[in-house]
Amino acid sequence: MTDAFEGKELDLVQNISVDCVVFGFDLNALELNVLLIERKKNPDYEYEDFFALPGNLIRQSETFDQSAIRVLKELTSIQDIFLEQLMAFGNPNRTYLKENDRKWLQTIRPQPDERVVTIAYYSLINLEKYKPTASSFAKKAIWMPVKDVPELAFDHSQILNKAFEALKLKLRTEPVGFNLLPRKFTLGQLQSVYETILGIELDKRNFRRKMLNKDILIQLDEKQKGVAHKSPYLYKFDQAKYEALRDQKFDFSL
Amino acid sequence: MTDAFEGKELDLVQNISVDCVVFGFDLNALELNVLLIERKKNPDYEYEDFFALPGNLIRQSETFDQSAIRVLKELTSIQDIFLEQLMAFGNPNRTYLKENDRKWLQTIRPQPDERVVTIAYYSLINLEKYKPTASSFAKKAIWMPVKDVPELAFDHSQILNKAFEALKLKLRTEPVGFNLLPRKFTLGQLQSVYETILGIELDKRNFRRKMLNKDILIQLDEKQKGVAHKSPYLYKFDQAKYEALRDQKFDFSL
Repeated sequence: MTDAFEGKELDLVQNISVDCVVFGFDLNALELNVLLIERKKNPDYEYEDFFALPGNLIRQSETFDQSAIRVLKELTSIQDIFLEQLMAFGNPNRTYLKENDRKWLQTIRPQPDERVVTIAYYSLINLEKYKPTASSFAKKAIWMPVKDVPELAFDHSQILNKAFEALKLKLRTEPVGFNLLPRKFTLGQLQSVYETILGIELDKRNFRRKMLNKDILIQLDEKQKGVAHKSPYLYKFDQAKYEALRDQKFDFSL
Repeated sequence: MTDAFEGKELDLVQNISVDCVVFGFDLNALELNVLLIERKKNPDYEYEDFFALPGNLIRQSETFDQSAIRVLKELTSIQDIFLEQLMAFGNPNRTYLKENDRKWLQTIRPQPDERVVTIAYYSLINLEKYKPTASSFAKKAIWMPVKDVPELAFDHSQILNKAFEALKLKLRTEPVGFNLLPRKFTLGQLQSVYETILGIELDKRNFRRKMLNKDILIQLDEKQKGVAHKSPYLYKFDQAKYEALRDQKFDFSL
């Protein structure tokens, strides 16, 4: 057993965990990314490395929200972000269907065969602002383009899929695209977020008109830098205005 | 201890339950209803009765979906309905904050002070089609107008609120109102469902136009019976058409 044997922490709930799906958007590559960890190898056990969502058991005294914030920080150092509950995943064999998962659990849990259910969280953040640093049982914590994500540990591939579906629905019904962008952004960048995530092409003029008609963007007296010619204006999301409008039956669908 | 002491069932997971929020729509009173149970009294313990959502511990071998279906059937006899996961509720003290809850748990659980998290499910059904019958530890299983629901057991009032919020969002974004109606319904009845649940008034002509434009209703060669004069046409929801349209970026918002 290693020092990282967490079963020793008596206040952990041995059969309930949280897992975090943190999405970021790479504005250079125009790709949706997700935050993953790679587990530390234990020399006593042979197993292939798996990428996994950052996740771990909850503590007895924590709410799920508190667990998600703590676990994400412990494994990736990322903090001060808004995490929202996605749903619970509870297939009885979700943690020990795969040989690699079983072997890994033996190195870290007192009862590796116990059924563990997990509460999944998700979040949309500005990828450039948050640089993950691995710690605890994570040896790496990295951003990876969603399209390149291999088979993940446990049922994490399924959780990622569900989170991606939820993200698409949210993008259609709420102005959440801004969370994936820097505070100041161009309409072109915003359109890229929609096009990339929804997998559709949008007409530039229509998109601009619809977005500006929502009346929740503030045009700044400032233009994008480092662009060859005709640099576009920068915009800011008007959170206060949005909240006021939303309460009047606001419909954000494209 | 009573015969109903369920801790004896060794395959129950002692700290994880499911709770079901089943909505029905009363077309006569034009009211949204929810299915509640009243717990059996145990003569050894004095406590006030609480209404509660139908819920109980999950079994080791079940998925959450299977647990929800089983538990709802055991307590209310209602079955063959679609239950969808809402979210998990896990405040550490959610089951023993209230004196009545603690007393009741002592009659039914081997470890009444153990933290129990719950996975909530919700469902929209045709109230006239499903008549609940109480069994197991429920002494009553009844439909109750949502607006009349008193403080419920545990955190069930909070769960009901969340389910109601989810129902409203769903009603704006998906054609789910039909699930609350008989298979054949009038546009007036459909409008009542929207108006009652969203708490808004809709213009009759606009509503008809919008609904018919969605192209997912089939007008039947049949009129509503028992109506004084100018009996309105009956309609049916076209599930197949909806599914085809939905996959082409269908937007159901009103």
